Amino acid sequence: TDLLLLPGDGIGPEVTAQVRRVAERLAPDLAIDERPFGGTSYDRHGTPLTDEALALAKASKAVLMGAVGGPQWAGVPRDKRPEAGLLALRAGMEVFANLRPALCFEPLADASTLKREVVEGLDIMIVRELIGGIYFGSPRFIEEIPGGKRAVDTQVYTTPEIERIGRVAFELARKRRNKVTSCEKSNVMDSGLLWREVITDLHQRDYADVQLEHMLADNAAMQLVKNPRQFDVIVTDNLFGDILSDEASQLTGSLGLLPSAALGEPGRPGLYEPIHGSAPDIAGKGIANPLAAILSFEMALRWSLDRPDLADRLFAAVGRALEKGARTPDLGGKLTTIQMGEAVLAEL
Amino acid sequence: TDLLLLPGDGIGPEVTAQVRRVAERLAPDLAIDERPFGGTSYDRHGTPLTDEALALAKASKAVLMGAVGGPQWAGVPRDKRPEAGLLALRAGMEVFANLRPALCFEPLADASTLKREVVEGLDIMIVRELIGGIYFGSPRFIEEIPGGKRAVDTQVYTTPEIERIGRVAFELARKRRNKVTSCEKSNVMDSGLLWREVITDLHQRDYADVQLEHMLADNAAMQLVKNPRQFDVIVTDNLFGDILSDEASQLTGSLGLLPSAALGEPGRPGLYEPIHGSAPDIAGKGIANPLAAILSFEMALRWSLDRPDLADRLFAAVGRALEKGARTPDLGGKLTTIQMGEAVLAEL
Ligand SMILES: CC(C)[C@H](C(=O)O)[C@@H](O)C(=O)O
Ligand SMILES: CC(C)[C@H](C(=O)O)[C@@H](O)C(=O)O
Repeated sequence: TDLLLLPGDGIGPEVTAQVRRVAERLAPDLAIDERPFGGTSYDRHGTPLTDEALALAKASKAVLMGAVGGPQWAGVPRDKRPEAGLLALRAGMEVFANLRPALCFEPLADASTLKREVVEGLDIMIVRELIGGIYFGSPRFIEEIPGGKRAVDTQVYTTPEIERIGRVAFELARKRRNKVTSCEKSNVMDSGLLWREVITDLHQRDYADVQLEHMLADNAAMQLVKNPRQFDVIVTDNLFGDILSDEASQLTGSLGLLPSAALGEPGRPGLYEPIHGSAPDIAGKGIANPLAAILSFEMALRWSLDRPDLADRLFAAVGRALEKGARTPDLGGKLTTIQMGEAVLAEL
Repeated sequence: TDLLLLPGDGIGPEVTAQVRRVAERLAPDLAIDERPFGGTSYDRHGTPLTDEALALAKASKAVLMGAVGGPQWAGVPRDKRPEAGLLALRAGMEVFANLRPALCFEPLADASTLKREVVEGLDIMIVRELIGGIYFGSPRFIEEIPGGKRAVDTQVYTTPEIERIGRVAFELARKRRNKVTSCEKSNVMDSGLLWREVITDLHQRDYADVQLEHMLADNAAMQLVKNPRQFDVIVTDNLFGDILSDEASQLTGSLGLLPSAALGEPGRPGLYEPIHGSAPDIAGKGIANPLAAILSFEMALRWSLDRPDLADRLFAAVGRALEKGARTPDLGGKLTTIQMGEAVLAEL
């Protein structure tokens, strides 16, 4: 399989259906497969990620996920929840580097809650560590104590984990505006101290030509609102990356368009997914914006399927469709999911 | 001592000097004392918080801190850093509830990077747990391992810790717009699961009249940018509270005006401080905005010194000074720190 589709839950199947149409038109030679995932897989197979689906994912060139989760699985045991399937997929595929662009598409600059002059031309790449930190550290438990319970989570990072994600950030910066901002809480966390030390060493050793800045995560949350265009590449841990990338994506007015990539060692398959969630409130209505999923496929063409030419064509087609006024309801328009897919196909 | 001033570092001494002038005019009967704190205390006494200063703080009715930290103490051992003094002061005073308002002052609505119609009238109260979580959990260490180092931090929360901060949030909400949003990452953290469980139980048991909403912390970071006025009171843990409150404060355009209070059990002294930091870039220039410190004193009058009448007078005086156009450089004006203090005094 070249491309494994994991439509997942909520609006996931609706948006990945448009990815399939685009892929079949743009790259008819791609071998595409599909498996249930998340809550949908739990309902059918009793687990959010079957061994067979994980094995297939690891044997593919790229995996494209729609979205996971929804209120109907709130009562499911923690380790069978849709989110657990996503964490298991990330860990199983060993995709340690999550690339989350926050990009302001010019025709949408006015859709932001921020002033146009603050977000126009915004182009940030957040590099989030994806398979370590407090998401995966042990011990983690809830125990009974006199008078109630006690819950523990553990944040762990090692030098090699920090170094490999640092490399990804510095390499990306060299192809962009040559600046990396590294975010942690080294003023209160030991993992933050190690993070800062390892990134500083790596910079001096191999990337002294790149501009490096350290910023506390709380200050970064502030600076993203104050002056987001000061950032080029942001590198940070799993938890801070989760929060800061969600904040950054909302700055642009283009949230329904934002894709992401999760990459492992060179040659290993990448995992691609829209930044948006499963959006239970509009699931099944046929009005979800498929562009974030389609642009996730664009990233897959570029980073895993070795077809940058097709990626360029697809990116340009999306841009033209937007310029001509194609808009789903989240962008203030009236197009359905299918019609938005067709607007892109028409430009290919 | 009624009021202990801890001017601290950077612009801290400049802004607390204006608090002293305001306090002496407004409440001449207050017994005011002062001690060095943070880097300034380290330089003089070899520790950022002396035992004597902590004892005095605990014996006061209210403590007002300016700011701590600065690049000159970057090389100081971790446990002697200015920030360590602040953490020790919070823990020593047992101020578990950090109240951080994000308020948009009408005359400053246009100073926000967000559109006026998004932030006008914004009034959020963030209730942050301040003496638990990953800031204080153990074990925490950095150890040598083959190929580098390994750093560990521990997040710990217990039922009583979550319950007491939850109570503060629900009580506050009843005096405001009666809504509490509780933020955690219960989809990936055990402490988040316990947090949600305890807040839910407390709500059902004692505060069913208040509207309660649970929101994942990453989504909250997004919603603060998308539609900040949906929030009334936000209750969250130490680390998420640090990040979300900094983000929220930057939404308003009024950052230089925002105070905060840290409270313990009833009858115990409160710790008051501006949200802004020590601002080393403008320290010593006499241009820092003293309003956040002055409004921190306003909170102290209200919550610890039992003088709500004086608090009302002070709040109104600050409002009038702003309406008449008093502006320090951070607000686009030309007043010095001292002149801004005088503008408030003139309205008292
Ligand atoms: C669904 C959830 C486990 C996930 C995360 O927290 O990583 C999501 O918020 C994301 O950012 O992809
Ligand atoms: C100075 C630092 C330790 C502190 C914190 O992280 O709590 C600061 O950011 C704050 O929010 O008051």
